[in-house]
Amino acid sequence: MGFWDLKTLKLDEFRPGIRSKLESGSNLTMAFMEIAPNKEGTAHDHPFDQCGVVIEGEIEMSIREEKKLLRLMETYFIPAGAKHNWKTMSSAAKILDIVVKQG
Amino acid sequence: MGFWDLKTLKLDEFRPGIRSKLESGSNLTMAFMEIAPNKEGTAHDHPFDQCGVVIEGEIEMSIREEKKLLRLMETYFIPAGAKHNWKTMSSAAKILDIVVKQG
Repeated sequence: MGFWDLKTLKLDEFRPGIRSKLESGSNLTMAFMEIAPNKEGTAHDHPFDQCGVVIEGEIEMSIREEKKLLRLMETYFIPAGAKHNWKTMSSAAKILDIVVKQG
Repeated sequence: MGFWDLKTLKLDEFRPGIRSKLESGSNLTMAFMEIAPNKEGTAHDHPFDQCGVVIEGEIEMSIREEKKLLRLMETYFIPAGAKHNWKTMSSAAKILDIVVKQG
């Protein structure tokens, strides 16, 4: 709980190609994620909002029919129920991502 | 809904000394806020988590007994129920702040 410095924060392996650090409270989960180049998620949706900001590199985010390459200091807001996906390009991306805590 | 570029996002007057832009979905509110120098909040708490990251400048955040001057790319996580406050110093601060949507 408390404070992170994203410039020096140590990350753990989350799954292949993604290293992360999570912090959860009663109803939010904040995650800092470093995603390797040339990775792609699986399009999915969930019944809660999700948002975040690019801290380093670039990542393509798709929300419903809209697709955008996001760079440093660019944000996304994924409404509950909206199908979305992500894809990294030739460089790694670091994002700070926030979701309503599940379960 | 969708995407913001924090480097160019236009903000609205929120209250004296604070300009902001908000986006809300079903259960999250994301706010980009620019807070003038030498401003201070009122210590308070609420029954939901809150978190965010400093995008420009610096801001002192207090969570319970802990107080920290946060700079670029430093984050805070305020657990539900924790008394907290903020204070800007001699320069303006820009933060991206996320809370569980109220009401």
